[in-house]
Amino acid sequence: MSDTFWAVVPAGGAGTRLWPLSRAGAPKFLHDLTGSGRTLLQETVDRLAPLAADRFLVVTGQAHLAAVTAQLPEIDPTRILAEPSPRDSMAAIGLAAAVLERRDPEAVLGAFAADHVITDPDTFRDRVRVAVEVARADWLVTLGIEPTYAATGFGYLLLGDELPGHPGAHAAAAFVEKPSAEVAADYLASGRYRWNAGMFVARPTVLLDLLAVHHAEFAAALRGIAADPATLPEVWPTLPRIAIDHAVAEPAGEAGRVAVVPGSFGWDDIGDFASLASILGAPDTLTVVGNPARVRAIDATGLVVPHGDRTIAVIGLDDVVVVDTGDALLVTTTARAQDVKAIVAGLRESDPGIT
Amino acid sequence: MSDTFWAVVPAGGAGTRLWPLSRAGAPKFLHDLTGSGRTLLQETVDRLAPLAADRFLVVTGQAHLAAVTAQLPEIDPTRILAEPSPRDSMAAIGLAAAVLERRDPEAVLGAFAADHVITDPDTFRDRVRVAVEVARADWLVTLGIEPTYAATGFGYLLLGDELPGHPGAHAAAAFVEKPSAEVAADYLASGRYRWNAGMFVARPTVLLDLLAVHHAEFAAALRGIAADPATLPEVWPTLPRIAIDHAVAEPAGEAGRVAVVPGSFGWDDIGDFASLASILGAPDTLTVVGNPARVRAIDATGLVVPHGDRTIAVIGLDDVVVVDTGDALLVTTTARAQDVKAIVAGLRESDPGIT
Repeated sequence: MSDTFWAVVPAGGAGTRLWPLSRAGAPKFLHDLTGSGRTLLQETVDRLAPLAADRFLVVTGQAHLAAVTAQLPEIDPTRILAEPSPRDSMAAIGLAAAVLERRDPEAVLGAFAADHVITDPDTFRDRVRVAVEVARADWLVTLGIEPTYAATGFGYLLLGDELPGHPGAHAAAAFVEKPSAEVAADYLASGRYRWNAGMFVARPTVLLDLLAVHHAEFAAALRGIAADPATLPEVWPTLPRIAIDHAVAEPAGEAGRVAVVPGSFGWDDIGDFASLASILGAPDTLTVVGNPARVRAIDATGLVVPHGDRTIAVIGLDDVVVVDTGDALLVTTTARAQDVKAIVAGLRESDPGIT
Repeated sequence: MSDTFWAVVPAGGAGTRLWPLSRAGAPKFLHDLTGSGRTLLQETVDRLAPLAADRFLVVTGQAHLAAVTAQLPEIDPTRILAEPSPRDSMAAIGLAAAVLERRDPEAVLGAFAADHVITDPDTFRDRVRVAVEVARADWLVTLGIEPTYAATGFGYLLLGDELPGHPGAHAAAAFVEKPSAEVAADYLASGRYRWNAGMFVARPTVLLDLLAVHHAEFAAALRGIAADPATLPEVWPTLPRIAIDHAVAEPAGEAGRVAVVPGSFGWDDIGDFASLASILGAPDTLTVVGNPARVRAIDATGLVVPHGDRTIAVIGLDDVVVVDTGDALLVTTTARAQDVKAIVAGLRESDPGIT
């Protein structure tokens, strides 16, 4: 890997459906959700360090700056950028792009959210290397994940023709929204669709120029902040709240400017405890995130997250989800994992301190 | 009620299947299992006080003497007897009988375990009053509970003829052991069987003389301790470990000396969390033992026992059992409530501190 690759890590998002682990004050990316001993944020940096060395830009909310800095002692604190307020992924990644554009005209950035899980990092890095080479030819490149089931919780990409001169990379024929179960099954069967994991690789100038096509003021504002960082507090609140997919990737895809590097490396965005259970454990097993000696089970499958030294006994429940924390306990099933959101909404009204 | 009725309360038994609430060091009777604000021991005394006033003898293990005394400040501490070691119910109730025999030749004792629940105490007391009158005529009287379902966890009594001169009391035609489900269904359908709740009412001399028929040395030893309490530590370990049902009630029943006063007053011995759920809540509801504000539920039925200020969220589980304590958490279903015993057996090997 050349020394022009920069890893951009947007560290945001609440992870409400991962309550009670994830909290408003300590969202998903700050937690060790996989029991690896490293938080999702730390695992994201660990995974990219063989490619990026110390070339990281982490973008996070002002409220989480101290925690992010503490979790990443190996990263120069001036490379951890604080957003004054949440402005969605386009502003976060666009700010990093604008900073890099001034710093290194040869740079290629890859943007990877801080709260995803990848179980095969070697293959992931191999795919990123291919994406970087394609991005040098001025494509906006996205990684397309080979579907392992008919997911309805992700958007998809339709693979177009292979790109001449770039074996293993394809044109993106279309971005499609989260499908119904029936449509997802068709996508899976066709073999031509990939999950859109929101991972983008591009030269900063390419990314900002594509943004400028439909959002000229937005791109100009980001470049203005990079030129004079003192204007950040004033300009930031005026930026649109929009995801990078809608602001750049979808219109650029229609314009034939997006390439896809397909891959299969055990990716999941861990939207809820069902997806955590699914990526960590085989079906019909009981997965313990934490100290397995603290969990006693008879005829139980699913996911158990013990807390500290407390013993958890589970008997006679399939696909159960038990998540223990100091002040709150969740007991549900993988099938109902989405409904955690409703519990949190109710608690926000009455007990905001534990959300 | 004359002032010769004494309530004898054996406070023993581990309640292993009610772990993690019930512990070896703090068994079932010391806990507020119903959420009433009173422990089972305290509720037992409260229920009997209108009949017994201050005439109580509580018999408990040396290990629990301090806790029992602290929970019952209204009872003269000299009326709380400590067993040097567990010797089952015949020794406990027999000791109280021997003490009473010397103290008050006119006494009638009623023995009621400290760890049962009765939801209709008025009817219970009414039945005890009848039993006391029958006991004065030198019967060994037991209360027979009208079955509400085909229970396989209790022994049964077969009702014989009504006793001349004692309306509402019957001869006990037979004691039968815990039946199979099929036999229990027959018992229920016949209308002639009652649950044996282990509640006995008798004159102390009648009880001890019936014991002496088959266990002469045992009866003599108990009377010896009552005559010279200083011999208790020496004699107690020599007493047989046997339940009052086997030592006295069954042989006396065969000899035609046992009367039954049938009753229906919401009795349960709370053998496990399924029976606790059943006696506290209607089917298809979620019962909270503790502060209901600390439990958030969506589509959940069963039993939840919160601990302190911790919030418990339960989603999409029927007949679930969630029991939280400071150092241990149980998650199971009412159908598997019996298997708690196996968890505790495993923990005794590895983590005796939390059993």
